Amino acid sequence: MKEVAYNEYANKALDLLSQGAFLTTAHDGKVNTMTIGWGSIGNIWGKPVFMVMVRHSRYTYELIEKSGEFTVSLPFHDMKKKLNFCGSKSGREVDKITVMEITTAPGQKTSTPVIADCGLTYECKIVYRQAMDATTLDPDYNQRWYGQGDYHTLYYGEIVACYTND
Amino acid sequence: MKEVAYNEYANKALDLLSQGAFLTTAHDGKVNTMTIGWGSIGNIWGKPVFMVMVRHSRYTYELIEKSGEFTVSLPFHDMKKKLNFCGSKSGREVDKITVMEITTAPGQKTSTPVIADCGLTYECKIVYRQAMDATTLDPDYNQRWYGQGDYHTLYYGEIVACYTND
Repeated sequence: MKEVAYNEYANKALDLLSQGAFLTTAHDGKVNTMTIGWGSIGNIWGKPVFMVMVRHSRYTYELIEKSGEFTVSLPFHDMKKKLNFCGSKSGREVDKITVMEITTAPGQKTSTPVIADCGLTYECKIVYRQAMDATTLDPDYNQRWYGQGDYHTLYYGEIVACYTND
Repeated sequence: MKEVAYNEYANKALDLLSQGAFLTTAHDGKVNTMTIGWGSIGNIWGKPVFMVMVRHSRYTYELIEKSGEFTVSLPFHDMKKKLNFCGSKSGREVDKITVMEITTAPGQKTSTPVIADCGLTYECKIVYRQAMDATTLDPDYNQRWYGQGDYHTLYYGEIVACYTND
């Protein structure tokens, strides 16, 4: 494990993100991970920030609203089977981490576990959150992604640890 | 000029951004540029997105609300004098581009000019915007950055062109 600057792997992180990453949350002894493909990395409020998006229907939404933190784990090798499972099943119905035999590790700077076999990890503490406002979203995007009205809340997490297993 | 993938220079872009970049807007024949240090690069709604933040007191706020697009120009060489000026003067009172003899160039995919002498340029069309909600911001951040109540609106611009003069 090697600590890296939050932006050192930003180009690779954005490439990997579009192929699927693990967003992990934990609260009150419950740990869940879901697959995400969207997000951003930035310098905001003078801090390194990873922004993730969670639809209100998700089990992750229940957890992240209470936990106030999250981790993002980006696989450097093929984890498609696990990613597909974690992107299609709900943590309300199945313990995805156990069923898929996903190895977690404790967070270095957060109380949220990380996915152990991933090449790149961000640990984040939420400093800002905001539910999307449909009225100021491009109508084409709105129709394409939110036909069911299941909007995202955007979570801006200060990156408190960033490391690679490269 | 060489077109590059939106994320190819993401690590460098975030480094440079924290040192100052030009956010340029244009509407109804008026062109203005201001210095920014905050923002993010991401993959959102299946699109490459650059997010910039503009306080409501700014002249840029008037322009960007009407234009629906913006460009971000990141200098690879020292432009501190121009950045300092564009970060401290308002386009309401002075034509910063003329006074500082800043060379602009037409946007490739937008109607907004770019700053010509910069190594890296993003041209963006706004697909989502949202004024900040003070109640869901970390109280320390709120006090540190918004003591005057002059909040940002966050503009998410689809990156329609990204190129370097490296």
